[in-house]
Amino acid sequence: MQTRHRGKQSLIFPNRPVIGAAASVAGKKEGEGPLRSRFDRAFRDNLLGQKSWEQAESRLQSIAMDMALKKAALAAKELALVFSGDLLNQCVGSSFALCGKGIPSLGLYGACSTMAEALLLSAACVDAGFAENAMALSSSHFAAAERQYRFPLGYGGQRTPTSQWTVTGAGAALLQATGGGPSVTCATIGSVTERGIKDANNMGAAMAPAAFQTILAHFDDLGRGPEDYDRIVTGDLGYLGRSILAELLEREGIHLGEKLEDCGELIFDRKTQDVHCGGSGCGCSAVVLCGHYMNELRSGRIKRLLLCGTGALLSPVSTQQGAVIPAICHAVCIEANGGA
Amino acid sequence: MQTRHRGKQSLIFPNRPVIGAAASVAGKKEGEGPLRSRFDRAFRDNLLGQKSWEQAESRLQSIAMDMALKKAALAAKELALVFSGDLLNQCVGSSFALCGKGIPSLGLYGACSTMAEALLLSAACVDAGFAENAMALSSSHFAAAERQYRFPLGYGGQRTPTSQWTVTGAGAALLQATGGGPSVTCATIGSVTERGIKDANNMGAAMAPAAFQTILAHFDDLGRGPEDYDRIVTGDLGYLGRSILAELLEREGIHLGEKLEDCGELIFDRKTQDVHCGGSGCGCSAVVLCGHYMNELRSGRIKRLLLCGTGALLSPVSTQQGAVIPAICHAVCIEANGGA
Repeated sequence: MQTRHRGKQSLIFPNRPVIGAAASVAGKKEGEGPLRSRFDRAFRDNLLGQKSWEQAESRLQSIAMDMALKKAALAAKELALVFSGDLLNQCVGSSFALCGKGIPSLGLYGACSTMAEALLLSAACVDAGFAENAMALSSSHFAAAERQYRFPLGYGGQRTPTSQWTVTGAGAALLQATGGGPSVTCATIGSVTERGIKDANNMGAAMAPAAFQTILAHFDDLGRGPEDYDRIVTGDLGYLGRSILAELLEREGIHLGEKLEDCGELIFDRKTQDVHCGGSGCGCSAVVLCGHYMNELRSGRIKRLLLCGTGALLSPVSTQQGAVIPAICHAVCIEANGGA
Repeated sequence: MQTRHRGKQSLIFPNRPVIGAAASVAGKKEGEGPLRSRFDRAFRDNLLGQKSWEQAESRLQSIAMDMALKKAALAAKELALVFSGDLLNQCVGSSFALCGKGIPSLGLYGACSTMAEALLLSAACVDAGFAENAMALSSSHFAAAERQYRFPLGYGGQRTPTSQWTVTGAGAALLQATGGGPSVTCATIGSVTERGIKDANNMGAAMAPAAFQTILAHFDDLGRGPEDYDRIVTGDLGYLGRSILAELLEREGIHLGEKLEDCGELIFDRKTQDVHCGGSGCGCSAVVLCGHYMNELRSGRIKRLLLCGTGALLSPVSTQQGAVIPAICHAVCIEANGGA
């Protein structure tokens, strides 16, 4: 039997499935940020003509999926499998986006690590021949997340300095067994961890140790180090979380320097957009990967990237009960071309 | 490249991963029902000594996982991968159960179809060599689910005739590349569907069409029919949902008769336990599979079974907004021995 695992928690994809197409759609604030030119579309109205924020989030997922399929000249009925998830209770963002489309669907919950989780499972299924193609799909919506996790927007609650801004947007990446595009070549599955953080407005600090653990495991399992990557990209640690991660890595003698980037830092302009510690949410790494980084990989400006999707696995109920914030991080290696 | 897909939505597992061990732990009411002798343990106190129903649910998952590992003489650190999920918002049942255990973990959301989803993904990963072993884990808790979806128990709300009773329990199934035990040989991934049902107290009716679609697709993709199975088992359609499914199948000329069973019907005694349309919840199919059916398969009384995990993908918010109830069903074929 073929072995596709390495070390304690890593997988390899010897058949090198490709991201044949990707699409990113975003909201108004994201469309006004530094990555505005990298999204396929940014909506001016965050309701997208729907009656609720939740329905608007579903609509974002549908649009991203349709766009990615169109780019690959694939009909929805030709899509073999979708892995999707979001932040809404019971993942209704995904369920309503996929309802009635007749596409085999597997639902995920990984909080803001969902895009990385969907990407690694899609790559695994295509690599092993379970599907000719598979889509990784995820979203978040600022207003829906605020209402669910904190306060409805109309309440006008004040935000703490360590809080982050949930990205409104959805990303879709189509994994294919054949064709052109960057390859997903290996991945490292994270474990659930916590370091005593209980402040639901400081998720960067809660997630940084999970990213640290997964990056170490990735290097260890695959015999790699910072020199093997052009970028190591976390999903939504934000300014504080990224600085904690950098410090944890420094203590182990691992200096990532400029190679370490965070989608939550890139998506908004800290000086003018008032987002405190940066962007967050399932949609954050989804749109930055499917918009910005796919562009960098396709152009060859980045040759090998490690996407480290970070997720804070809390719920408002667990926080109200005084529990710590469990966190997770899954890492996915994406390469621009055929080089090993 | 090896092909492991069949037809539109089915997967095959040529290496026949085995369920080397399984464990089921249940609550008080479940321990008083017809399957009492089939569970590894039934707790008299549904709080399990914890401070909240949510923490009790996490505890159920931990205990089920530990028991299955113990039966397989495996240490937690030898477990390569866990797929888990539950009904609590943000799946905190699973996250807290796995927190700090150092096990690579992938979170799922499939509502009550989660056990079938976890089982098929675990089997896929073991079959393709991504992991030597993988655990499928799921749970639900009556009191936590009532508070979240309907009313806190103290409110004493009256239940409608079509309502179902969320099972308190957790099931764990350990998939392994080698060793003895029933094999998982193929599976069919469902798509999200709805037929206009909006009554959150009638989930059997919402889910029956999803089960119908997946069973038809399974037969179609694999060239099989009712004669190929000893049992076709739905997760939690309950009395009404199962009768709707039987009728939908009859119209297509498919007569399952006594072969069609539902975990939600089996777990409680309708006459004496006052559960209206039967049991439901992620824990329902998990404990009935890991307790009752694993026993039947190991003894050879059942040779080939199709577990059809059914899930209603609604949220209280989607229901309040007047939306329909999307549903899904994933089918997993489990065989007692090496026969094809």
